[in-house]
Amino acid sequence: MTALYPPDRLGRAQRAAAEAGLDALLLTPGADLRYLTGYVAMPLERLTCLVVPATGDPLLVVPLLERPAALASPVGRLGIEVLGWAEADDPFALVADRLRAALGRPSGPVGLANRMWAEHALRLQAALSRDTRSPASGGAGQITLAGPVMRELRIRKSAAEVAALRRAGQAIDRVHDRIAEWLRVGRTEAEVGRDIADAIVAEGHVRADFVIVGSGPNGASPHHELSGRVIEAADAVVVDIGGTTAEGYCSDETRTYVVGGEPDPEFARYYAVLRQAQDAACAAIKPGATCESIDAAARDVIADAGYGEYFVHRTGHGIGLEGHEDPYLVAGNTEALEPGMAFSVEPGIYLPGRHGARIEDICVCTEEGGERLNLVRRDLIILD
Amino acid sequence: MTALYPPDRLGRAQRAAAEAGLDALLLTPGADLRYLTGYVAMPLERLTCLVVPATGDPLLVVPLLERPAALASPVGRLGIEVLGWAEADDPFALVADRLRAALGRPSGPVGLANRMWAEHALRLQAALSRDTRSPASGGAGQITLAGPVMRELRIRKSAAEVAALRRAGQAIDRVHDRIAEWLRVGRTEAEVGRDIADAIVAEGHVRADFVIVGSGPNGASPHHELSGRVIEAADAVVVDIGGTTAEGYCSDETRTYVVGGEPDPEFARYYAVLRQAQDAACAAIKPGATCESIDAAARDVIADAGYGEYFVHRTGHGIGLEGHEDPYLVAGNTEALEPGMAFSVEPGIYLPGRHGARIEDICVCTEEGGERLNLVRRDLIILD
Repeated sequence: MTALYPPDRLGRAQRAAAEAGLDALLLTPGADLRYLTGYVAMPLERLTCLVVPATGDPLLVVPLLERPAALASPVGRLGIEVLGWAEADDPFALVADRLRAALGRPSGPVGLANRMWAEHALRLQAALSRDTRSPASGGAGQITLAGPVMRELRIRKSAAEVAALRRAGQAIDRVHDRIAEWLRVGRTEAEVGRDIADAIVAEGHVRADFVIVGSGPNGASPHHELSGRVIEAADAVVVDIGGTTAEGYCSDETRTYVVGGEPDPEFARYYAVLRQAQDAACAAIKPGATCESIDAAARDVIADAGYGEYFVHRTGHGIGLEGHEDPYLVAGNTEALEPGMAFSVEPGIYLPGRHGARIEDICVCTEEGGERLNLVRRDLIILD
Repeated sequence: MTALYPPDRLGRAQRAAAEAGLDALLLTPGADLRYLTGYVAMPLERLTCLVVPATGDPLLVVPLLERPAALASPVGRLGIEVLGWAEADDPFALVADRLRAALGRPSGPVGLANRMWAEHALRLQAALSRDTRSPASGGAGQITLAGPVMRELRIRKSAAEVAALRRAGQAIDRVHDRIAEWLRVGRTEAEVGRDIADAIVAEGHVRADFVIVGSGPNGASPHHELSGRVIEAADAVVVDIGGTTAEGYCSDETRTYVVGGEPDPEFARYYAVLRQAQDAACAAIKPGATCESIDAAARDVIADAGYGEYFVHRTGHGIGLEGHEDPYLVAGNTEALEPGMAFSVEPGIYLPGRHGARIEDICVCTEEGGERLNLVRRDLIILD
């Protein structure tokens, strides 16, 4: 795990915060905290907060009862202070006080973890606003998002992170490779989904994050999950599944299968279009290509074939310690790809009331172009 | 499920918001949204937001690709508008615009779901702040928490909700009843935990939310999760487990077992104290008793026996659609219990470096006193 948590990340975050004009990053449990420290904590009502001041020493504020678990985590080897607060303490005032001490003055603008709960964000804001001992404290209590700083640190995956994403990709590949064990005519989506969820864990994840089994007309709802619908002969079935590995990295892979018969001719026609679109998007990946150009590469193929109005979502999202993170492959995003960026490529075509299809692989941008981290075959698979 | 989602909840929320001086509640995916509408949605970066104006019609704003799933949920039967936004739209401006339309004027203070992500909260705040067409729009962009309003709606469980919590309690009881199948000398905490997680699902939950197996000295860390430690003869093992049922209600139950031998005499001594403390707290439950008095009932027994410094956390937390919610049984909380309030009663004693113990049941306050929803025996269980 060492390579996944190089020790310089906290220092880089401090410097990046300073460059962004922030006096500190305040990070509650989630991917940012895990990225910087390796500490995996459940988000709970009791405040756990990593205080990353632009200058001075970072510290981790935790509920007293979590302190042994925090010290047993990789945090214990970072050499930072782990400060426990007791049930009757005010942890928000504690963070404000310690931040002032680290800076040697009241704090100006601070960046909050993008996924911090509002109840923590507003209480931290109030505590920081009270912290105005000096008349020169313009900006005290001013809160903004840590996201712009953290995304820059996290968006280009290291070789160790790409290897972890590759292992996650292989784990979810193994689940799709076994799909014929579960996906059969006469079973309900919920029954199939339960078996898939078990297999996601059995094949190398610590948890299944989502299981979409959209059969027949349900396949036309991109985020349909599971229902009691019984799978019928010749149904197309969208299977979009993912989990998180012990290393913390996410998988996400979609295949669309046909079960127990030949598909509707129109389905077969647009599936071929979809496959070309997904290939075109993957082929367009290279350093310097914009995010929106990858989206356009898929969308143009689908639009040219007359199905443009049925592709109702963006082409992809970044992936790493979170299932959805920067960069997003969407019209309007002119950010240029760089080596190490990892994201889904997942065009879809959805005919309301009839059926739908999506093909999704995780790809990483390398110096040489795009590398797929999912390798399950993409031609139309017809199961018995 | 009808009884769990009576149709008047949205109206009650609107009236409660108005009484609290809020112009609206803005609720992203989570327990508040599920409570009011029955809609279960994954929290994602794309904004899903229930807009509950103090006057006018509520509406649900969802990403366009989620709209079919939202309409297929109980939301589809509520008769409220479900408005889809496309990938290139600004959903935050959309919420602000529609809220102004519902109110017939720019909005004043609004309450955000307590667990809304900061990235959504700050963007909603910015959109609402821009929404100042009228010079009389004092308070535009002023955000606060919806929690004080939502807690009042959610804290007194209906008979249908208590029944759902009872089913969750019985499901987790069945897992503890099977503990001897998995908890044995020579196995690691992680191995035992994996089997327990499977059983949590098999016995009637849709997911395992947490599995703590704290063996030997790890039992002294209240929120220790799982490690590679091999369970040794005569170890005390804290097993704190819970999940969420298909109805959305949570379970949470702790028992401390001794495995493969007689326990350390001091452990046996304080386990007896702990059991008395937990019984005393449950016996103290009645309408009108304060939350802190239940905490004190447990704490006094432990302190009188000389172990006060080793009981390092509050006695309990509310439970319902969330694993931790109001009311909290903690010193300083003078709120009086009322019939329907449901919460954990979970004193613990932890001797650092040696061992620990905790006993936890979910209890509900009734007119007649406390009712335990967990019924697994609480005397010291010594497994082979």
